Amino acid sequence: MKKVPVLEIFGPTIQGEGMVIGQKTMFIRTAGCDYSCSWCDSAFTWDGSAKDDIRQMTAEEIWSKLIELGDDRFSHVTISGGNPALLANLSELIGLLKEKGKKIAIETQGSKYQEWLKDIDDLTISPKPPSSGMITDFEKLDQIIEKLRNSNQQQSISLKVVVFDTTDLQYAKDVHLRYPSIPFYLQVGNEDIHEAETNKLVQTLLEKYETLIDQVIEDKELNNIRVLPQLHTLVWGNKRGV
Amino acid sequence: MKKVPVLEIFGPTIQGEGMVIGQKTMFIRTAGCDYSCSWCDSAFTWDGSAKDDIRQMTAEEIWSKLIELGDDRFSHVTISGGNPALLANLSELIGLLKEKGKKIAIETQGSKYQEWLKDIDDLTISPKPPSSGMITDFEKLDQIIEKLRNSNQQQSISLKVVVFDTTDLQYAKDVHLRYPSIPFYLQVGNEDIHEAETNKLVQTLLEKYETLIDQVIEDKELNNIRVLPQLHTLVWGNKRGV
Ligand code: SF4
Ligand code: SF4
Repeated sequence: MKKVPVLEIFGPTIQGEGMVIGQKTMFIRTAGCDYSCSWCDSAFTWDGSAKDDIRQMTAEEIWSKLIELGDDRFSHVTISGGNPALLANLSELIGLLKEKGKKIAIETQGSKYQEWLKDIDDLTISPKPPSSGMITDFEKLDQIIEKLRNSNQQQSISLKVVVFDTTDLQYAKDVHLRYPSIPFYLQVGNEDIHEAETNKLVQTLLEKYETLIDQVIEDKELNNIRVLPQLHTLVWGNKRGV
Repeated sequence: MKKVPVLEIFGPTIQGEGMVIGQKTMFIRTAGCDYSCSWCDSAFTWDGSAKDDIRQMTAEEIWSKLIELGDDRFSHVTISGGNPALLANLSELIGLLKEKGKKIAIETQGSKYQEWLKDIDDLTISPKPPSSGMITDFEKLDQIIEKLRNSNQQQSISLKVVVFDTTDLQYAKDVHLRYPSIPFYLQVGNEDIHEAETNKLVQTLLEKYETLIDQVIEDKELNNIRVLPQLHTLVWGNKRGV
């Protein structure tokens, strides 16, 4: 039986961002990333700091944990990372979740393809803007999006770009204009991932959100898009596992 | 040329709630409502307090105003009220917006049917819970939903219920279970529609949002739903026309 490296399983809670914002869901966070974004809010998945917490788990073991935590109180599961698309072995879990009638969401930066990506109900591709320090391989991204677009009519795909500054916003625009038919989400970046005072964080984030909205309002190339904050950060601050 | 009573036209801004939360959009607010919800946050559309601001406008006049404000910086228009579904005459505006290639969203409580409801891209039906003081005519709602469901494959329909207390939450659950296949949104009620201090309001609303999430998490009959706050209230407080 195939195993995948898991760092956290938690929920039910709500999805705080992106295309299914607000959705009641369970979370599975896998370990490992091929990127190392400067502002990564889950660096513990790849920087070694939580390596003793990584468990190699089979699909059945993950399912047991989901049931232990969520019982009959969930219908939706979000797989997050790190970059879950590094893990070919996730196919077993995805098959099992579908067999159990659960909807599945995943977020990946779009640097790797897996056949099982076609089976994800709510797929968010989140290329990383310049402030991350990473470089997008657009040819690769083109290929991945092309494959997915031609495969599954039931699937919802969206693009999401996190924005920290005006260079990021220009990058976001380039991504949106490259794939204009794919629903596009702009998200306010959280620069204060170590801020412990939630009230202060909320105020900063809402101000940044307003600034981003203002920029979008002025820009005629950013008409058919959605601009969102991270709701879980507004509610729970920088706390993990909620 | 047919006219409709209009109270406000503003934007571009973002949609703060519901199925297209975050979407960049223009807003048209029509006057008049067949309800009088106790906590209505747009009571000025029906209580006479803004009756001198109501303008009877043709579709062309509304379009001119949209262009004056939004120029080429919008692709989406939200028609809000009051209850826009009272206005058979809106058909002309809806035809014109479609001709111009704009997407249209509308919110109505589901008490009245209009043929043009079929042409709305993002249709939110928002029945009002007991705390509003209103009584839902479920037979009427059944009929409306039945008609819409059989008409337009392109259309996205959602249900949204605003929740102020546990009686409202039970009502929301009844609505969700009555129409389980329609995407369902729970929204935190804003009791402080006259609170002028935005920071205080934000804190109260986020606490209420967390409480509502906690209730949803515990409830196995509320699995496949989405729980959202009103983003515009978090960003702009109780200010009108933003
Ligand atoms: S791609 Fe995601 S998980 Fe990987 S480093 Fe960047 S932000 Fe972190
Ligand atoms: S239905 Fe909407 S506009 Fe009408 S009274 Fe109720 S909240 Fe206000």
